[in-house]
Amino acid sequence: MRADLFLVPSPVVEQRLAGKTLVLIDVLRASTTICQALKAGARAVIPVSEPGEAAEMRAKIGAETGILGGERQGIKIENFDLGNSPLEYTEEKVKGKTVILTTSNGTRGYARGSTSKLTITGALANISLVAQKVADAGQDLVILCAGQDGAFSIEDTLCGGMILHKLQSEIKIEMELNDAASLALLLYRSNIRSLKQTIARGEHGRFLRKLGFENDVDLASEIDAIPVLPVLKDSRIILEQE
Amino acid sequence: MRADLFLVPSPVVEQRLAGKTLVLIDVLRASTTICQALKAGARAVIPVSEPGEAAEMRAKIGAETGILGGERQGIKIENFDLGNSPLEYTEEKVKGKTVILTTSNGTRGYARGSTSKLTITGALANISLVAQKVADAGQDLVILCAGQDGAFSIEDTLCGGMILHKLQSEIKIEMELNDAASLALLLYRSNIRSLKQTIARGEHGRFLRKLGFENDVDLASEIDAIPVLPVLKDSRIILEQE
Repeated sequence: MRADLFLVPSPVVEQRLAGKTLVLIDVLRASTTICQALKAGARAVIPVSEPGEAAEMRAKIGAETGILGGERQGIKIENFDLGNSPLEYTEEKVKGKTVILTTSNGTRGYARGSTSKLTITGALANISLVAQKVADAGQDLVILCAGQDGAFSIEDTLCGGMILHKLQSEIKIEMELNDAASLALLLYRSNIRSLKQTIARGEHGRFLRKLGFENDVDLASEIDAIPVLPVLKDSRIILEQE
Repeated sequence: MRADLFLVPSPVVEQRLAGKTLVLIDVLRASTTICQALKAGARAVIPVSEPGEAAEMRAKIGAETGILGGERQGIKIENFDLGNSPLEYTEEKVKGKTVILTTSNGTRGYARGSTSKLTITGALANISLVAQKVADAGQDLVILCAGQDGAFSIEDTLCGGMILHKLQSEIKIEMELNDAASLALLLYRSNIRSLKQTIARGEHGRFLRKLGFENDVDLASEIDAIPVLPVLKDSRIILEQE
């Protein structure tokens, strides 16, 4: 299997997706929030790039079903129902609803998912299911880390490295890696016993803790804490049907 | 000293340069070519973004003095005097001349150098002088890796990591690192005994070898092979005056 990882979104990515599995990673916090929303019974999460788009989408699907979620600079967007804290996405708030989500980095990647064969939301919270699904799908893999405002993000790269490690060392798949995938694997293996601390001490971890979101950072760092498998179908993220 | 490294150019970089030392790294090959051109006696290298700009600049400074150098997709630009192979920049070709250089990735970063206090061209070929100059300058450091078409490049990151290693472990400067700087340091230290091989086997190294530029890859991987210190002064790169 060929596995290419991208540390930040790059125009190169889109040319490499046809027929492949795409894993979109934004550990802090969009990927974790998507997992949590679907686990709490949301029908679907619709990722959109901008707040205005989100509002239009809700007008289209109706205020009873549609819930607006998202952040800018880490903070809930004005007039939105929910922010980007996975812990807000309780059954009471989202069961049976469609969440329209827009975040600074993580939700933008889903627009690229239109050319891949399979698009999965990847987080540490659902990492074992993601790795297994990638292996079962059997086709070449592209891992796209959301990063932070165009710069590398350590938690996303660790998560990407851990997926590659699971594929290579646990599921025993032979893989041909690009340079960034090798780097992510090195980063993960160097932090294998200190994942939580490395993430909490990282730039984005510190930023969120300063805003009072330390529980989000804890939850997002917990391996397999939210064991669901969100996949993209017709521009909506839903739980994979068995 | 605070040291921030960026794996790829990002809009965030420009906000962080005031009063700092900026090191611009494009090991394969712009940084190495700039070192070589100045060592061979070029008066200055003028980095520009586009071929059209280069031609205009030459019209301005005159055809006797101005030499056009650069590449797209690794290959010399049509009607240019030289490509981006450091080995082409001999005394015979460039002594006393001003080289106007445009490359796919490496020369674009110099436009950012206008806000930094000091801007240095960094390569493996001049790394010891670069590290010492950064230490002597004493101000905070930003290392900008050129990368490859917006994606991470392993040779630039190794070079950035090696500068940080020299500052921290040899010159013994206490440093506060951003996440990407820590990653670069980890990458360098994991490859400390296999730099040449890692670069030759990397994506860009393989690409250049396929084009027949294996001698460039060898030269660019050789530590302190071209011991000169190019700095940016008024949009021109010149040798630092003692």
